[in-house]
Amino acid sequence: MYDKEYMRRAIDLAKMGEGFTNPNPLVGAVIVKENKIIGEGYHAKYGEFHAERNAINSLTESAQGATIYVTLEPCCHYGKTPPCTECIIESGITRVVIGSRDPNPKVAGKGASILRDAGLAVEEDFLREECDSLNRVFFHYITTRTPYVVSKFAMSADGKIATASKQSKWISNETSRELVQKMRGKYMGIMVGIGTVLADNPTLNARIEGARNPIRIICDSNLNLPIDSNICKTAKKYQTIVACSVSKEDCVDKWEQLSDCGIEIVTTGKSEKVNLSKLMKILGEKGIDSIMLEGGGTLNYNAFLSGVVNEVKIFIAPKIVGGKEALTAVEGEGIFDLNKAVLLEFEKSSIIDGDILLEYKVGRK
Amino acid sequence: MYDKEYMRRAIDLAKMGEGFTNPNPLVGAVIVKENKIIGEGYHAKYGEFHAERNAINSLTESAQGATIYVTLEPCCHYGKTPPCTECIIESGITRVVIGSRDPNPKVAGKGASILRDAGLAVEEDFLREECDSLNRVFFHYITTRTPYVVSKFAMSADGKIATASKQSKWISNETSRELVQKMRGKYMGIMVGIGTVLADNPTLNARIEGARNPIRIICDSNLNLPIDSNICKTAKKYQTIVACSVSKEDCVDKWEQLSDCGIEIVTTGKSEKVNLSKLMKILGEKGIDSIMLEGGGTLNYNAFLSGVVNEVKIFIAPKIVGGKEALTAVEGEGIFDLNKAVLLEFEKSSIIDGDILLEYKVGRK
Repeated sequence: MYDKEYMRRAIDLAKMGEGFTNPNPLVGAVIVKENKIIGEGYHAKYGEFHAERNAINSLTESAQGATIYVTLEPCCHYGKTPPCTECIIESGITRVVIGSRDPNPKVAGKGASILRDAGLAVEEDFLREECDSLNRVFFHYITTRTPYVVSKFAMSADGKIATASKQSKWISNETSRELVQKMRGKYMGIMVGIGTVLADNPTLNARIEGARNPIRIICDSNLNLPIDSNICKTAKKYQTIVACSVSKEDCVDKWEQLSDCGIEIVTTGKSEKVNLSKLMKILGEKGIDSIMLEGGGTLNYNAFLSGVVNEVKIFIAPKIVGGKEALTAVEGEGIFDLNKAVLLEFEKSSIIDGDILLEYKVGRK
Repeated sequence: MYDKEYMRRAIDLAKMGEGFTNPNPLVGAVIVKENKIIGEGYHAKYGEFHAERNAINSLTESAQGATIYVTLEPCCHYGKTPPCTECIIESGITRVVIGSRDPNPKVAGKGASILRDAGLAVEEDFLREECDSLNRVFFHYITTRTPYVVSKFAMSADGKIATASKQSKWISNETSRELVQKMRGKYMGIMVGIGTVLADNPTLNARIEGARNPIRIICDSNLNLPIDSNICKTAKKYQTIVACSVSKEDCVDKWEQLSDCGIEIVTTGKSEKVNLSKLMKILGEKGIDSIMLEGGGTLNYNAFLSGVVNEVKIFIAPKIVGGKEALTAVEGEGIFDLNKAVLLEFEKSSIIDGDILLEYKVGRK
């Protein structure tokens, strides 16, 4: 009972690093002695101290004989900071309660072993599911080296993301839109298609004070991005990647114009459209661990079809729009055989001021 | 506290009449003496005794000094059965706790007055909202004399009711489909468009043992219903109404063929398509108090546009189908200006084996 409460506190602490630790994991730690919290900490920012060390640094009294609750197995290697196992042992802590295992199978269990060998009592897999869900992005990225992709869209109760006259402002309510702004801050990249840029001329920056601006990724097979678009005009301020499926030689002028704006151009090789699986590998190599996909129907369909989507967040507004020609979230050719539909796994529903937010993991790809 | 429990028991009893009392309301009653239930009853079937009388008939001891909890104000007029106020007074009951008021404003309060005048203690509006929601259909029908219309559809998470190749079996899971079968039993009519009949050749009967078969209503502007369709072939067994917008003179042969099958044909007057507002008046005059609308995109759009829909039930399956040409639940021309969308009021969401059921009332018409 008490154990769970302390671990939940550690989970809450871990979340405070959201948006700042990528591509490192979110980790929280709580140190308890005689049923009293005597230290706590979390990994606040990539490159800075780990949660365990921050907790130890915050101690209000000696940790001799204390228990540490930590959401992820303590590291045992020298990285940007010394190993956490070492500082836990030195602190006098005698019991370690661990949530998630190290996602790297080659390392998993080593931190726990070192602690046990030093004579500490170690419990693993404690509230593991809750702890694991803190770091989905990290676990995915560390094992696949491709970004974790979250497809987000807002539709009416009859499944429309825009009217037949292409009006889409606004389907969802203000509270939902604010929540989307907060979500954006959790992912390193935001991806849209050229269709969305041409239709809405967005800036795609963070509109919340202090929030990190996501890297803007535009899928633009033929480099149609207008030089006078808001994306180009702000590309020196906000990091921007354009993904295309042409070679530089074929489009040298436009390529150079866009580069001059401050845009990085990547190509997935000559083909009709961007190969999203290849693109994810390229983006992963650049250290992008997570992307919020806010595509229109064409890009979304390609993303689902290529199996790059990991999670889906759908806002459903309490309105009926109608229209055979109205736009829907996933278009393209579509799947003809219902048995071949992309399967989702329901995770959560929330009510947001009358809008409904449905959250799914992608099942079969 | 106890009062609420007894009224909730009365509400549960009332629900046992679901599907059999139309166009009468659902009513439950519980008689309590010294914290013990000594009688209970509900209105089980149109034309039979009211809940209060059934509860009194079930008494296990004298009701002298007892309290009756009744979900709807007791009637005070001679209808198919004598007034309930009379039998309550005669029973020796001294306190009456009432949920809903009589929906007929000319009668509302009269039952309560008669009881008070006879010296009984009367409390009104007790758990009124819960009691009112038992009888939405009845309240609507009694005040408008048109059927209460519930639009129901099942769509994928990306808003498709069928693939681009028109495959729609099955979007939702088996548990959801069973629930739909149960829902059908609650409404007097089931309405589809000719498009659905031509595509699926359904029978639209109740597939649950003992369930009432709904009256089948087919919107078929030009009398295109094939004589060899399952609807025609079973029309002598299951009551069927075809609504058209032609005159008998213009289509005399088909009109007579369909009539010979046992189908009743109604016309809303010569025009391009059926006038749904007029149709609801016609169906209301026939005593049809409620309809489950299981239309395709065209009929649904016309229904929302004419403002005849009162409630919406949407099943959302955890799958992505995609397709610009895939079918959606509400099509037609659509609403161009989002500010003019048909507004819904969120009521409830439920998880059904991974499907989500969203339930809404229709707000602005």
